[in-house]
Parts: sequence; C-alpha cells; structure tokens
Amino acid sequence: MTVEELAGKLGLSFEGNGAIEIEDAAPLDSATAGRLTFLGSPKFLDQALKSHAVLIAPAIYPRPESQTVIHSENPRAAFAHALALLYPPEPIRSSIHPTAILDPAAHIDPTAEIGPHVVIGPRTTIAANVRIGPNCTIASAVRIGENSRLYANVSIYERVTIGRNAIIHSGAVIGADGFGFAREPGGAYRKFPQVGTVEIGDDVEIGAQTCIDRAALGTTVIGDGVKLDNQIHIAHNCRIGRNVVIAAQTGLSGGIVVEDDAVIGGKVGIGDKARIERGAVLGSGCGVLTSKIVRAGEVVWGTPARPLKEYLEQLAVLSKLPETRKQLREIVKRLEALEERTPCS
Amino acid sequence: MTVEELAGKLGLSFEGNGAIEIEDAAPLDSATAGRLTFLGSPKFLDQALKSHAVLIAPAIYPRPESQTVIHSENPRAAFAHALALLYPPEPIRSSIHPTAILDPAAHIDPTAEIGPHVVIGPRTTIAANVRIGPNCTIASAVRIGENSRLYANVSIYERVTIGRNAIIHSGAVIGADGFGFAREPGGAYRKFPQVGTVEIGDDVEIGAQTCIDRAALGTTVIGDGVKLDNQIHIAHNCRIGRNVVIAAQTGLSGGIVVEDDAVIGGKVGIGDKARIERGAVLGSGCGVLTSKIVRAGEVVWGTPARPLKEYLEQLAVLSKLPETRKQLREIVKRLEALEERTPCS
Amino acid sequence: MTVEELAGKLGLSFEGNGAIEIEDAAPLDSATAGRLTFLGSPKFLDQALKSHAVLIAPAIYPRPESQTVIHSENPRAAFAHALALLYPPEPIRSSIHPTAILDPAAHIDPTAEIGPHVVIGPRTTIAANVRIGPNCTIASAVRIGENSRLYANVSIYERVTIGRNAIIHSGAVIGADGFGFAREPGGAYRKFPQVGTVEIGDDVEIGAQTCIDRAALGTTVIGDGVKLDNQIHIAHNCRIGRNVVIAAQTGLSGGIVVEDDAVIGGKVGIGDKARIERGAVLGSGCGVLTSKIVRAGEVVWGTPARPLKEYLEQLAVLSKLPETRKQLREIVKRLEALEERTPCS
Repeated sequence: MTVEELAGKLGLSFEGNGAIEIEDAAPLDSATAGRLTFLGSPKFLDQALKSHAVLIAPAIYPRPESQTVIHSENPRAAFAHALALLYPPEPIRSSIHPTAILDPAAHIDPTAEIGPHVVIGPRTTIAANVRIGPNCTIASAVRIGENSRLYANVSIYERVTIGRNAIIHSGAVIGADGFGFAREPGGAYRKFPQVGTVEIGDDVEIGAQTCIDRAALGTTVIGDGVKLDNQIHIAHNCRIGRNVVIAAQTGLSGGIVVEDDAVIGGKVGIGDKARIERGAVLGSGCGVLTSKIVRAGEVVWGTPARPLKEYLEQLAVLSKLPETRKQLREIVKRLEALEERTPCS
Repeated sequence: MTVEELAGKLGLSFEGNGAIEIEDAAPLDSATAGRLTFLGSPKFLDQALKSHAVLIAPAIYPRPESQTVIHSENPRAAFAHALALLYPPEPIRSSIHPTAILDPAAHIDPTAEIGPHVVIGPRTTIAANVRIGPNCTIASAVRIGENSRLYANVSIYERVTIGRNAIIHSGAVIGADGFGFAREPGGAYRKFPQVGTVEIGDDVEIGAQTCIDRAALGTTVIGDGVKLDNQIHIAHNCRIGRNVVIAAQTGLSGGIVVEDDAVIGGKVGIGDKARIERGAVLGSGCGVLTSKIVRAGEVVWGTPARPLKEYLEQLAVLSKLPETRKQLREIVKRLEALEERTPCS
Repeated sequence: MTVEELAGKLGLSFEGNGAIEIEDAAPLDSATAGRLTFLGSPKFLDQALKSHAVLIAPAIYPRPESQTVIHSENPRAAFAHALALLYPPEPIRSSIHPTAILDPAAHIDPTAEIGPHVVIGPRTTIAANVRIGPNCTIASAVRIGENSRLYANVSIYERVTIGRNAIIHSGAVIGADGFGFAREPGGAYRKFPQVGTVEIGDDVEIGAQTCIDRAALGTTVIGDGVKLDNQIHIAHNCRIGRNVVIAAQTGLSGGIVVEDDAVIGGKVGIGDKARIERGAVLGSGCGVLTSKIVRAGEVVWGTPARPLKEYLEQLAVLSKLPETRKQLREIVKRLEALEERTPCS
C-alpha cells in the first residue's frame, strides 16, 4: 500500500512522497525507510525530526523536506487504524469443522466459522460471521452476536449472552458459578446455588484467562466497549458500565458497580459492593475496601485506596520518618539543656 | 412448587398461604409476589416487612398478616437449600461420548457421563455419577470420587486423587509440577523433579482457573469441605485443612499449612512454610511472611500481616503524620524562643 | 538402582554400603532406610546425623559409621539430578493420534508425539522428540524446538517461536494480543492491532495458566533458562533475560526489561517500561513503579519498591509511631512548664 492509498483510506492528508510503498510498521525508535511510524508524544519530536520512516504526526509538525508525513491530530489512533489496514485479520472461512460437536438444537449462522473439536450445546445461537476457535466449549442457551471471535480453549457456561464484535482470548471462562456459600451449624459450607447469568455488551475484548462469574440471582453485566486485560476475575453480580478499561490481574469481588469510563489499573483488588463512579481512576495495585465509594473522576492509589494527593503526601512523610525521629531526639536534648539552666520559678 | 411443598422438603414450618406457587427466587430488594426471598440480616427488617414475596426468615420475625413466611433460624442457608430444590441441576446422562478417548485400562463407572473430546489416561478410575465436561484431559492413575463434576477444559495430571461431590470449574489445573529448581555453578537452574501428588478430599469446590500443584515429594493435601474461588494458586506440598474457604486470586507458596476452618480473603499472598492455625482469618490483600505463624482465631490484615487492631492503629497514625510534622515545627519554634530568653546559667 | 550405580551416574563418590537398593526418595525429616534424601542446609546436620536413609551431603560431613553418604558440594542439585534418574519421565511415544487435526502444511517431525484432539495450523514446525498433550491448540507459523513438552490444554497463537527443552504446563497461553488501545473522541477505545510476536529461548519452563502476550510491534522475548511459575502475566514487548526466575501470580506490564539472573518473587507487579537490572531481587508482593530502574544486584521490597534496608527501617519506624506520638505529647508538656517558669527577657 502506498502512502497516498493509506492516507486516502484513513481520510487524512499527507505531505511528501505519496508513492512510497509501506512495507511494515514499527515504533519510532526502530522504524527505517519504507516503514510506517507515528509521533506518540511531543517529547519525541527530536527523534521524529531525524526519522527516515513515514510518519503519522500532527500538521503543526514542522516537516523536514525529505520526510513524508500523514497528518493526524491523534497520531496514535490513526496509527492503530493504519495497522488494521496493513495487517488485515485472516479472512473468515465460513464452515463447520467435521470434528465439531453441535447439538441439533443449536442455531449456527451459515457464515460462521466453527473450529475443530468445538462443542456447542442446545438452544445456543451463533450469529453471522462469528469465529469459534479450536477446542472451545459453549454450553446451552448461549447467544453470541455478529462478528465476534473466540480464540482457542474458551469456556462459556449456559445462558451467557455475548454481544457483537467481541474478542475473547484463550483460556477465558465466562459464566462459572459465583463464590457463594452459607455456613451450616456443623461447620460445613452449603453451596448457594448460582442461578443467574452473564450479559456482555457489544465491542468488548476479554483477555486470556480472564473469568467472569454468573450472578447468584439476576445478572452479571459487562457494558459496551469494555476492555479487559488478561487474568482478571469479575465475581458474581458485578455491573460494569460502558468503555471501562481494566488492566491485568485485577479482581472484583461480588456486587461491585463500576460506572462508565472508569479506568482500573493492574493487580487492583476491590471489595464486595464497592462503587466506582464515572471516570474514576484506580491506580495499579490499589485495594478498595468493601462498600467504599470512589467518587466520579477521582484518582485513588494505595491500600486502602485514597486520593492520589493524600497517598503521595503519606509516602513523602513516611520516607522522612527516620529523620523525624532523629529530630525528636534532638528536641529532647535541647529541652533538657533548657530545663537545667532555667531557674525554678 | 407450592410454599407448603417447599417448606416440607426443607423440613421447616411456615405461616400464611401454603398454596402459593413459587415461580422464581430473587434478592429481597427485587423480589415480587410469587417469588421466594430471604431475610439475610436484621438490618433489612424494614424492607422485609414491606415485601410481597414469600419470605424465609426467623420465627421471631413479626409477620404482617398478608405475608407468607417460612421459618428458619438460618435464612441464608435455608434459601440456598431452597434454590437447589427450585433449580435442580441438569440430570446426569450416563453415557460416553463417541469422541472421548478413553484408555482401555481406564475404569469408568457405567453411570458416569463423559463429554465430547474428553481424554482419560490408563489406570484412571471414574466413580459412579461423575460428570466430565467437554475437552477435559485426565491423565493416568487419577481417581475421581462419586458425584463429582468437572466442567469443560479442566486438566488433571497423573496420580491425582479427587474425593466425592467435587465441583471443579473450567480452566482449573490440578497436579502440575511444583516450582522447584536447584541452581548450578554455571548459573542455570536444574529442575527439581516433582514426583509427589495431590489428594483432594470430599465436598470440595474448585473455582475457574485455579491451580493446585503436585508435591515435590509426598502429597499436596486439600481437606474435606474446602471451597476455593477462581484463579487461586496453591503450590507444592501445601496442606489445607477441613472447611477452609479461600477467595479469588490468592496465592499460597510451598509447604504452607492451613488448619481447619480458616478463612482467607482474596488476593492474599502467603510465604513458604507459613502456618495458618485453626479458624484464623486473613484479610483480603494481606501478605503473610515466610514461616510466619498466624495463631488460631487471629484476624490479620496488611503486609506484613499483623493483627487487625494493630493494623488499624497504624493506619490512623499514618493519616495523622502530616499533622505530626506540623506540630514538630511548632515545637522547635517554641524551643528557639525559650532558648533566646533563657539566661545562661 | 543401587547406591553405587546412582553415585556412578551422578559422577560422585560415596562412603558406606554401595549395595543398598534405593527404593524411593523423601525429605530429610521423613526418609527411612532404603530411601534417598539430602542435607539441604548445615542447620539440619543434627537431623542428618540420625537419619537411616541414604544421604547426599558434602564430604566434610562427619559420617556416622552406619550411614551411607554420597558426597556432593551441592546436595540439593545432586538430589534433583538423582530424582530425574530415579523417576525417569514417561518415554515418548512417537505418533500422531488419529483425532489430532494437523494442517497439511504443518511440518511434524516423525519422532514427535501428538496427543488426542490437538489442533496444529499451517506452516507450523514441530521438531524432534516434541510432545504435545491432549487438547492443545497451536496456530499457524509456530515453531517448537526439540525435546519440548506441552501438557494438556495449552494455547499457542500464530507465529510464536519456542526453543528446545521447553516445559509448558496446562492452561498456558502464549502469544495472545497485548492490551493496547487508542481512545477516540467519542470515548470508545479502538484496538491497537498487536502484530508482533513472541520468542522463547531454550530450557524455559512455563507454569500452569501463565500467559505471555505478543508484542504490539516487534517481539516479546523470553531468554534461555527462564523459569516461570503459575498464573504469571507477561505483557507485550517485555524482554526477559537469561536464567530469570519469576514466582507465581506476578504481573509484568508492557515494555519491561528484566536482565539476566534477576529473581522476582510471587505476586509482584511491575509498571510499564520499568527496567530490572542484572541479578536484582524483587521481594514477593512488591510493586515497581512505571519506568523505575532497579539497579543490578539490588534487593527491593514493598510498594513502591525500595531497597530492603530502607523498607525494614520504615517498617520499624512505623511500628513505633504510636510511641512517637506519646513522646510528642510529653515534650509539649515539658515545654509548657518551661515557658511558665521562664522570665520574659
């Protein structure tokens, strides 16, 4: 694809040599001539000025004469778009592999691609252009929306609903029982049956080995546009809003509400029934206590999670503590000296 | 099922209209007429008094005339029991799917249900009424006790023993090698062969993507009635007692002993050879140091884990630290003033 | 195997009765006569002196007359070696199971063992003596080197390269998409296509349910001799050096560099683009901030990770804080007393 063709498909203008054939894409620091790269932040401007690669950058960028630049106010998003054009996904092969075991009462759209050794239960509906990778198991009464893709070895329990354009990576488990028990007088735990389900919106990506449990009663909800990294645990009855992003290894206990546009770092732990309001940001590794409310737009950090400013103050004070204790000892000495030389009143 | 029938099966008495047909179950705040709900805590009594649903609650509960109440001293446990009756699990279909690959030297009880694409190795014994979900792999010389259920995509390594009534969720891995190496003079790590095994008692539930490693030598033991949430890691040679509950994403290093009735929160990390005594409680996210002993019944929190009271005191003091430093500066000023106006002795 | 035979195979000398038949191996505290054990640390010398088992220990060890000792300066490593001889792995059965689905354009060495229900994509190369366990899915253009072993239910995405002698446990996922998105003006996240790959060196062990993501652009690299425990997450574009050891449940964000010989504990979280220099040690549960450099050989602990000495000091000071506040109150009293009895100057 030439620069001119690419710019056209991106709906962007360019300056320089539109005939350059783009062979590949690379980060700014390793992109050579003929490759596509982008200016992710003004702080890399010096590096960009020296690059021989085709650059996606804002129009305000002062192009050296020899350089070819595609103009975008959001170079990272434009580069992402370009990558999708340069590396188109493998085309779907509408077919059902002969080793797949499909219940006669499953509804599989004829455009779908069902891989080897897939198992699909009764009353499950697979929509148009869905791809199910090898060795996936999809139980009964599941619904998977158009254009969704499940990689290999995904497990979907009964009655789960997944929207359109989902991407679900290997090892993910959707709809396993929530963790609920009632203790009996003898000390044994009796299972609290988990009879609810899971509903996942459109345009959701679910990372490798992430699990989303079904509700005890009712529904665990994942909103449109949510992006989940690897090895995340979402317990029963959580309700995650739209366009929420959660990084790897984070765990949500039961009944948590996360409102739209929240951003949750990696390795975060959130206690039962906490509420993360719209646009809040939870720093990586923080711990949010049970029933805690993190206010809209707030940025919290640490365990127990507290406003970033407060967390930083405490850290600073903490690092000065040995000095503080030294100061105290000095004060006591000065006090003693004073006490000695002060006449009794 | 009518209220009268349900109460009879639960062995409980009721007041009100025994002829009501129970259609469904729901939490107290969303249960409408004809549904079953329960009073989980006295603090929801006001809500309960207004409910039109069939209620499970203690007999001391002052029933409004229009309400139907099934009496139980432990409403949560009774509700769990009721759910199991209202939503009976799918009946077992005793059969071996034609795509399952069973070693001729495996012993499969004729009442068992073996799903599609299951692989079972030699000398493995599957007891009566066991269900093995699709795409599970069970290696050689494994024993799985009566009424146990493995969901899809579970992996069981050789020589693992699993008791009766187990529930094992998708993605779980039982019996993988423990993590043991000996460093060689050149710097390379030589694998310490993991030749032990895993023994799991009766009535154990194991969450999605949880893994329990085999012992290096000897046995990793999971006691009767243990309940493990999702994404838990239990390393080689741990010994977990009876009725221990562990929440999601917790990790146990090698050789840890957890005694009966301990309760371990989510995202807890426990160092090698620690000992968690009977009935101890580890707060979510806490970190227990190597070889540490948490005493019977103790409640610990934080990292390094310490008694809850101590943890809360430190938190309180920590939050007052900026104020403490301000106080110090003031003291120094007062000292200086005094030093100036005190005559030399 | 007799003591004499075993010592011969280990290339070690022995004292005592070389004709003893070794039946089994066990830890020092439970090894009985006829079993093999080892002296792991001088602190167990008393126990060793009383043991009836065959002992691997340094030659300096003062052997009681009745004892048989195989001499090694590194008893743990020698014992590991002995275990590998006493419990040889099941021999490979060169064969392709009839239920495996191999693309006609895959290259499978005739000595390889391909288990039931395995799926292998086009242009994938499986070298000599490789074993692929049941229900594994290996996508297109993957390369797996000689003598490597994949246990059941492993998922390998396209274009991943794995070296020789790899051991990959069940549930592992190699090559899933990195977690990269660009936010669009409307608030939706557009996927940043992950078009790079993963390269894994020789002699690497990868634990159950561990995942290693492919690079966004370029390569995620795992060096020779790296040992990864269970449930580890390694994000896109990380570069891990040789002989690095990482314990369970640790997570590495994107673009992290870990140099040779580093040792990383369990449940550690490392922020984007951090650099862990040669031989550094990260204590279990610590949190390393984005872009942080941990210097060669440094031992760090806590969150944010800091030198162990500093961490211990802060812990000590923290535990004295309530006392410090008491001291302050006393100082203020003494000050007031002084102020009262000091004449105005």
